[in-house]
Amino acid sequence: MRIVEIREDVAPISSTIRNAYIDFSKMTVSVVAVITDAIRDGRPVVGYGFNSNGRYAPQGLLRERILPRLKDAPPDALLTDDQSNIDPHRCWALMMTGEKPGGHGERSVAVGTVDMALWDAAAKIAGVPLWKVLADRYRNGDADDKVWVYAAGGYYQPGKDLGALQDEMRSYLAMGYADVKMKIGGDSLAEDLRRIEAVLAVVGSGEHLAVDANGRFDLETALAYGDALAPYGLRWYEEAGDPLDYEIQAELGRRYPLPLATGENLFSMQDARNLLRYGGMRPDRDVLQFDCALSYGLVEYLRTLDAMADLGWSPRRVVPHGGHQMSLNMAAGLGLGGNESYPGIFQPFGGFADDLPVENGYVGLPQTPGIGFERKPVLMEVFSRLSA
Amino acid sequence: MRIVEIREDVAPISSTIRNAYIDFSKMTVSVVAVITDAIRDGRPVVGYGFNSNGRYAPQGLLRERILPRLKDAPPDALLTDDQSNIDPHRCWALMMTGEKPGGHGERSVAVGTVDMALWDAAAKIAGVPLWKVLADRYRNGDADDKVWVYAAGGYYQPGKDLGALQDEMRSYLAMGYADVKMKIGGDSLAEDLRRIEAVLAVVGSGEHLAVDANGRFDLETALAYGDALAPYGLRWYEEAGDPLDYEIQAELGRRYPLPLATGENLFSMQDARNLLRYGGMRPDRDVLQFDCALSYGLVEYLRTLDAMADLGWSPRRVVPHGGHQMSLNMAAGLGLGGNESYPGIFQPFGGFADDLPVENGYVGLPQTPGIGFERKPVLMEVFSRLSA
Repeated sequence: MRIVEIREDVAPISSTIRNAYIDFSKMTVSVVAVITDAIRDGRPVVGYGFNSNGRYAPQGLLRERILPRLKDAPPDALLTDDQSNIDPHRCWALMMTGEKPGGHGERSVAVGTVDMALWDAAAKIAGVPLWKVLADRYRNGDADDKVWVYAAGGYYQPGKDLGALQDEMRSYLAMGYADVKMKIGGDSLAEDLRRIEAVLAVVGSGEHLAVDANGRFDLETALAYGDALAPYGLRWYEEAGDPLDYEIQAELGRRYPLPLATGENLFSMQDARNLLRYGGMRPDRDVLQFDCALSYGLVEYLRTLDAMADLGWSPRRVVPHGGHQMSLNMAAGLGLGGNESYPGIFQPFGGFADDLPVENGYVGLPQTPGIGFERKPVLMEVFSRLSA
Repeated sequence: MRIVEIREDVAPISSTIRNAYIDFSKMTVSVVAVITDAIRDGRPVVGYGFNSNGRYAPQGLLRERILPRLKDAPPDALLTDDQSNIDPHRCWALMMTGEKPGGHGERSVAVGTVDMALWDAAAKIAGVPLWKVLADRYRNGDADDKVWVYAAGGYYQPGKDLGALQDEMRSYLAMGYADVKMKIGGDSLAEDLRRIEAVLAVVGSGEHLAVDANGRFDLETALAYGDALAPYGLRWYEEAGDPLDYEIQAELGRRYPLPLATGENLFSMQDARNLLRYGGMRPDRDVLQFDCALSYGLVEYLRTLDAMADLGWSPRRVVPHGGHQMSLNMAAGLGLGGNESYPGIFQPFGGFADDLPVENGYVGLPQTPGIGFERKPVLMEVFSRLSA
């Protein structure tokens, strides 16, 4: 078999939401289709990918550098030795040809987007779900049959009062989620505490609520919030300071006794490893949120998991950012701790298979070959326009 | 006054050279022209910028995000309070609107490229050289009248033997350089030592030669090279390991007694600060090579210099990567330790004013308003096509 063509396009995922750092009024996402000549069920296999929210569509990079390198390579160089399937590791090395080390942003999103589509195609050609490919290859076949997911929302929006925030959280519980996340740091501490208490009244107790400052705080503010948050016993306190300010993270970890979370804005194994080396993160309680679709894809993620293991971290401490099905497959196949979910936003890219409901905070895995996008028709509509 | 238009284009700077990490066969550079309606010497002021070598032209990012944000802003928002000139700091904040923290690559190049053109225009509108603008604004008018520069070359090239390497270095000395740099790590240690000894035979002693591994080495190799290099008493040993692997840097610094250099692949204040916090760099001897044209420009560089000062570092320890006139102005105006120079390569972007020769390893500063590009006609030809 061989890859016949790789197409890409940009789709908007703009909305009126904002976190403590940016608004999403101009947010876009790249979608990629890897079209092969492998025939399954009578049709050519096509793998799909998209980049995660919070970073913009890397269309220029895909067109200027990443896709031409795959296109210009000998077709066999993208495949396994027996040429029966795509080899995402070999494709990764080709995509990164001529790239200097360091500077891990944007191109990490472009590579991650294509990597998703390559793994989707590879699993479809193998005729099995991606979570099973990963479990068989990297975990002796030991796959989880369900994954803990939490509903990430609670954004700031014009005109959204405490009642609307509570209604939002009630809707997540009604969908089957047991745990939710909300934004903080976009308002005063006093107002954020009112918002937190309003949500706690809905979800019952702190273990069901995580809060996310999106990297907005300086050290003083991070600590002040930590002191104020500690009595609530929250699930976790996320991204207090700048994602690269490991000193803030370490200081906060020395003072705040409960779980901290960060990592969604670290886009390489090296950056992730630096967080673990210098950020004072505690392997017995803290949560790492690296997102493959922003950070060079699954191929690099395996390196990150290896670096974590070297430093004494279990993959169960990882709960990826992004709320996409790629990370859901990785969670089940590689034994991660769970996955983010955006039930209400970033559609049609957020959320999982339509026919696999969330139950008691867990979601099952589709048996469909590939990542399982075909079980989410509204997403397949976007993809189908690309591969038609 | 106001900015009338910002244009951009891509120019090739491809060559057959390679370092230990990449070849430059497909290297490109973005050029930007900031066209204003301010009239000086009877003509509208135009500021020019380009990105530094080693990273590719960020055309997609410029077109998709960075330039539209400037264009869509109210024209006054790009200017000083009295609207008499461009305010690069305000422009910077506009260019970064909607950008999350972390992930400092690519967009840092796009912003750095525009930042260069904005400062060039701002200094031209002020009617003074940029180095003087900087000295007056940030250093009580205290500008250096010449800057130490070294000739960076010694790349690996097909068919280049020791004699050709020596001829190259002789040509740099003939141009007025006293100090040179060569690549290592693209061959065996034994062969690299032969290359080093061949160059030492030309330049006289180790203090006149720096070596650059371009981030290729693992810890073991970095230390082995360090042990073998130490007896030569080299000017510095540059970028031994991955630029984000601060542990390799720190280990090497504990063992190698002479100056180490790194930083060209760290693209933000946060990344630079992490190097100083965790990389074991020694403020009494080591060299920092942050390049404004790859790392969000001069506006961010001022933050980096502040972070350095907080950690006890003098700006004299900074010798920027890139060999461009922007860094030359910053070196003279902000009191840096020198500047890289590529006499033979990356033309027409490398090198300084044609009529200011290098003498005894130092180069003078042009009195021309702006960065001084107008004193390098071959570069102005490229720029002029953009602004015609």
